[in-house]
Amino acid sequence: RSGKMAKSTKLIDNEVFQAYATYTAIVLLKMMLMSLITAYFRITRKAFVNPEDTASFGKGDSAKKYLRTDPDVERVRRGHLNDLENIVPFVGIGLLYALSGPELSSALLHFRIFAGARILHTFAYLIPLPQPGRGLSWAVGYAVTFSMAYKVLKTVLLL
Amino acid sequence: RSGKMAKSTKLIDNEVFQAYATYTAIVLLKMMLMSLITAYFRITRKAFVNPEDTASFGKGDSAKKYLRTDPDVERVRRGHLNDLENIVPFVGIGLLYALSGPELSSALLHFRIFAGARILHTFAYLIPLPQPGRGLSWAVGYAVTFSMAYKVLKTVLLL
Amino acid sequence: RSGKMAKSTKLIDNEVFQAYATYTAIVLLKMMLMSLITAYFRITRKAFVNPEDTASFGKGDSAKKYLRTDPDVERVRRGHLNDLENIVPFVGIGLLYALSGPELSSALLHFRIFAGARILHTFAYLIPLPQPGRGLSWAVGYAVTFSMAYKVLKTVLLL
Repeated sequence: RSGKMAKSTKLIDNEVFQAYATYTAIVLLKMMLMSLITAYFRITRKAFVNPEDTASFGKGDSAKKYLRTDPDVERVRRGHLNDLENIVPFVGIGLLYALSGPELSSALLHFRIFAGARILHTFAYLIPLPQPGRGLSWAVGYAVTFSMAYKVLKTVLLL
Repeated sequence: RSGKMAKSTKLIDNEVFQAYATYTAIVLLKMMLMSLITAYFRITRKAFVNPEDTASFGKGDSAKKYLRTDPDVERVRRGHLNDLENIVPFVGIGLLYALSGPELSSALLHFRIFAGARILHTFAYLIPLPQPGRGLSWAVGYAVTFSMAYKVLKTVLLL
Repeated sequence: RSGKMAKSTKLIDNEVFQAYATYTAIVLLKMMLMSLITAYFRITRKAFVNPEDTASFGKGDSAKKYLRTDPDVERVRRGHLNDLENIVPFVGIGLLYALSGPELSSALLHFRIFAGARILHTFAYLIPLPQPGRGLSWAVGYAVTFSMAYKVLKTVLLL
């Protein structure tokens, strides 16, 4: 692949960028999966938030009782929001990091640990695992993003 | 335009990237609009969440009664969060997809359907339309993003 | 630096892109800080949402009383969500803007005002400052993002 890289100026032919693209697609797909899990729990637990979503259960009080919160639904939603709070910085800072010229091995290490930590975090949240399982998996992903931000700022700082 | 493309190595002169930039700007502006709609409903429904936001209504109990939730405000906020959950993956995966060398016609098809689906989703949420209006518009946007992720991973997979 | 720019086709050697990378890293790190502040308030106020997070306080009712909301925790969480709603559009539109060939001085003006406004917004939210402190700092960041989107669409519009 490095022969191909040398001849091309295209981002997509750069191996570090390919690794970034792979892991960004994976963690964003994982985040998107949370929507399906939320929908699954809303339907199986019959816990909805919009009146129009309960119309198929009939009208009036027979439908209204399904406008309620459910602990499992709320748990998935918290996991989804935590993904947004952590995967958004990864995608943004990771792009800048991939363009800042890191070694492929170093980039892969960052991306793999982040993706692994976020997948663990989802299992820790949904099962749920006892603490500090969820806390540690969150902290590992956080530290990886921080490490990439440090490399970016060391390379490009232009205030 | 293709003559210009051939001579330039700049991303911004690539037509697929121009299409990505256009539709990303549109859907992000649409998402930003949700903030203004929330503010509009908070002010017209007099439903606030921060005590400092009700200070202009006087002090004590006369202001405190405006610290409340309102169904219309909460509906817009849910639409806004749904935008975040779906537009963030589009922006991230769409960028990688635009760089993975798709045909312009195929890229435009993806971007146009996604933007149309998300605009429909907002109307379906805010009017609100009966289901499955909102559900279907959500699913179409979701499927478009998934299709782009598949193309990205097929092109660049480097684990 | 402009000599270096002229010889390189790498994004990262472009000064506007360096400025984008710097300010994007800064605002994303600022957003990540909100997670730590939330954790700080959850621990000091003893206000948790997941039962497994209170296990260290013992079992049964002695732990259950810490499953509660706290005004300070909720305030930080609202600030965090507001960051997501505003920093995501900045990161996405800012990237397209940086690639659309603005003057460095103009780009720096946009990025500096946005970063300053969002840092002010966080202080205004957490202290909290009386309105319209928070509202104005929000509006300034919003207007900067809108201005960049206008430049992007003027440059690349391909519908």
